[in-house]
Amino acid sequence: MEYVFSDKLSGMKPSAIREIFKSLSDPSIISFAAGNPSPLSFPTEAILKIAGEIFTEEPVRALQYSVTEGYGPLREDVKKRLADKFGIDREGDETIITAGGQQGIELACKVLCNEGDAVICEEPTFIGALNAFRSNGAKPVGVPLGDDGVDTEALENAVKNTPRAKMIYLIPTFHNPAGITSTLENRRRVLEIALKYNIPVFEDNPYGELRFAGEDVRTIKSMDRDGIVIYCSTFSKILSAGMRVGYVTAPADIIQKMVIAKQVEDVHTNIFFQMLCHRFIDEYDLDAHIAGIRKLYGQKCSLMLLELGKNLASDVKFTRPEGGLFIWCTLPARISQPDFVKEALNRKVAVVPGSTFCCDESAVSDSFRLNYSTPSDEDIVRGVSVLGEITKEGIA
Amino acid sequence: MEYVFSDKLSGMKPSAIREIFKSLSDPSIISFAAGNPSPLSFPTEAILKIAGEIFTEEPVRALQYSVTEGYGPLREDVKKRLADKFGIDREGDETIITAGGQQGIELACKVLCNEGDAVICEEPTFIGALNAFRSNGAKPVGVPLGDDGVDTEALENAVKNTPRAKMIYLIPTFHNPAGITSTLENRRRVLEIALKYNIPVFEDNPYGELRFAGEDVRTIKSMDRDGIVIYCSTFSKILSAGMRVGYVTAPADIIQKMVIAKQVEDVHTNIFFQMLCHRFIDEYDLDAHIAGIRKLYGQKCSLMLLELGKNLASDVKFTRPEGGLFIWCTLPARISQPDFVKEALNRKVAVVPGSTFCCDESAVSDSFRLNYSTPSDEDIVRGVSVLGEITKEGIA
Repeated sequence: MEYVFSDKLSGMKPSAIREIFKSLSDPSIISFAAGNPSPLSFPTEAILKIAGEIFTEEPVRALQYSVTEGYGPLREDVKKRLADKFGIDREGDETIITAGGQQGIELACKVLCNEGDAVICEEPTFIGALNAFRSNGAKPVGVPLGDDGVDTEALENAVKNTPRAKMIYLIPTFHNPAGITSTLENRRRVLEIALKYNIPVFEDNPYGELRFAGEDVRTIKSMDRDGIVIYCSTFSKILSAGMRVGYVTAPADIIQKMVIAKQVEDVHTNIFFQMLCHRFIDEYDLDAHIAGIRKLYGQKCSLMLLELGKNLASDVKFTRPEGGLFIWCTLPARISQPDFVKEALNRKVAVVPGSTFCCDESAVSDSFRLNYSTPSDEDIVRGVSVLGEITKEGIA
Repeated sequence: MEYVFSDKLSGMKPSAIREIFKSLSDPSIISFAAGNPSPLSFPTEAILKIAGEIFTEEPVRALQYSVTEGYGPLREDVKKRLADKFGIDREGDETIITAGGQQGIELACKVLCNEGDAVICEEPTFIGALNAFRSNGAKPVGVPLGDDGVDTEALENAVKNTPRAKMIYLIPTFHNPAGITSTLENRRRVLEIALKYNIPVFEDNPYGELRFAGEDVRTIKSMDRDGIVIYCSTFSKILSAGMRVGYVTAPADIIQKMVIAKQVEDVHTNIFFQMLCHRFIDEYDLDAHIAGIRKLYGQKCSLMLLELGKNLASDVKFTRPEGGLFIWCTLPARISQPDFVKEALNRKVAVVPGSTFCCDESAVSDSFRLNYSTPSDEDIVRGVSVLGEITKEGIA
C-alpha cells in the first residue's frame, strides 16, 4: 500500500556517509570516508575489567530503568571536567547525558524549532546536524566558513535576513568536515552577534580533546555569561563511539525541555555505559589515555599531510588541522569533484564528496573530506598515492 | 534570559511517572507506582559472563560505530522469534533495533505526523506514548477502553471524525495502565477499520511475553496482509530495561523512514547490548528465562489481587490481568481519586493517578494504576492494606 509520510521526513534520504559506511564491508577498499575513531583509541582492557566490576558489584543499577537526566556521578564528572579543561562553569547551567552528541543536536533543534523554522550553520557542516534539523522540519541556512572560522559578516546578515532563525549551529574546533579551528576573535564576534539578535548558539565540540598541535582556543561557552550557548560533546572520540554516551551543558530552562524531549526518545541513555564512563574517569587516567590518542592522530594526520603534499597535483588545496579527524581537500576547476570521487571509488579509495555537507543537497561542491584516524599507515600512503594519480591525470 | 521554545515542547511537562520515580528515593515509601521489571528478572550471571566474552573476543565491534538499522544477527533473532512465537512474518516487512520500545513509538509518530496532526489511542494509555505524540506536535485523541479492548465503534467514529488522524496507537496485550487484553474479535475489527480508512496501526507489545494465565491471543500484526500494522516490542521486560534495546517490525517503506529519523536521534542503539542480546538468545535458553519471570509475576499478581479483594472497600473495582505488570483500580464516586492518591502518599504508599494516562492532562480520572512486579511480597501486603484502609475510611 501507499504510505503518507510527514512533510519533514518525506523528502529525506539516508545519510550518504552512513550509506558509504555500509558499502565499506568490501575489504579491498581503502576508506578515508568514515568518521570513526581509531580502534586503537578504545581502552579495551580497562573496559573489560570495569564491565566485570559493574556486573558483579551493581548489576541491578546497571540493568534497571534509570533517570532521563543521566547517571548522577557521571554528570558530576562531566561538570568538573568542563570547568577544569574548558572553562565552562556558568551558574544556572545544567548538564545531562545524551545518546552521543548526535542526540544533543537533535534535542536542541526539537525544543527550539517549529516546522518551517531555520537553523543557521557553517557551510559545509556535519551531515548528522543537517539531517537533525531537516528531520524536525527546520531548514539549514548555510554561512561560508573561512580559515578563521565562520564568516561573521555573513553570519550577521543571515541572522538578520532569516526571520525564522531559531539557533546558530557551529563546530568551532577541528571542524567536521573542514578541519578548521576558529580564532578567539571569531568566537567573540559570534557571541556578540548571538546576544545582539538574542539567538541561541549550539557549540558542538566532539573533537575538542583531540588537539595534537597548536594552542587551545577558549570555547564560546566559556565566555557565555548570559546563558545563550548550548554546549555539546561526547565520549565517542575518547572512549568508545559504539556505547553512545554524550552530554549537553546549557541553561537550566533549555535543559528541562531537552529532558522532556529525551524522555520520549529513549527514556534514558543506557545506564551501564554511563556507569562505565564514571568508573573510567574515577579509577583510570583519562588524560593519559587521551594523550595517547592525540599522539596517534597527530602522527596519522602528519603522515597524510605529507603524502598529500607529495602526491596531489599542486593546484589541489587542503587544510592543515591541529586536531580532530578530518582534512578537507578542494579541487581546481579543471577537475569535477563528483567525477573525482567516482573515479577514486573505482580505484578502491573512498572519500566523502563535499556536497554531502551542504545545506542544499543538490549543490555541487568542489571539495571532499578525508579521514586519517581509521586507516592504517600503509593504507594512508597507498590511498593518497591513488588520489594523487587522479589529480595529475585528470579524469577521462 | 528568556527562551522561546517550539510550540510542541513549550506546554509539555516532565512525565509524572518519571517524576514519581525520582521521588521514590525515600526508602520508607512502598511504591506501586513504577513500571519497572523486577530486579529478579535480570539474568545477571549470564550477562556478566557474556560481557566478558564480548569485550575479550570482539571488543572493537562492541565499541566502534555501527549501523543505524541494528546488529544483523540480532535483527535475525528477532525476526525468527516474531515468526515462531507471534505469527509475524509478513513478506515485505523489515525489522530494526531501537532504543527501547519508546523510540519505536516516537519514530513512528515522527515519520507519519506533521505538527497539528492527531494520533488515535486508547484512553487511558501509556504516558510515554502520549508524550511522544505531543513532542512531535501531534494531538492524542482518546477512545474508551472496554473489557474486550478498545471500543471499536468509538474507534471508527474517532477515525472518521478526525480528518488529520495519521495513526492508531494501541496496546492490545496486557494494556498499560489498564491490564486488559483485547479479544481476537476486537483485534480483527480494529484491522478492518484501519484498512477501511487506510490508517496505520501501531501495535505496542512490550509485555506480550509476560503471560502467566489464560491463552495467547493472536497479535494484530500477525493478521496484517496489507502492511498496515507497525509492530513494536522490547527486551526491557525480559532481559534488562537499562540497556535500552527494543525493536520495530513494519513495512520496508516505513522502516526506511524510521531509520533516517533514528540516524539523527542516536546514530544507532548501543551496539554492545545488541551483541549481548544476540549471544543470550544464541547461547542461553531465553524461553526458560521468560518462564521464570512469568511465574514470578503470576505469583505477585495473584498476591496483589488477593490482598485487593480482602482489603479494598467492595465498591472499588479492579482489573484481573493475565499478564504484564499492572492492575487498574477504579474508585466509586464517594472517593475523590486525587485526594485518595494524595492520602496514600501521606501514608507512604505511591500509586499513579489515572489522569496521568489521559489524552487531556487536566481530566479528572476516577482510577489509579498499581504495579506488582517491583515491590516485595511484604510490601504488597502492607501497601494494599493501607490502600484498603483509605477506601474504607473515606477521606476526611
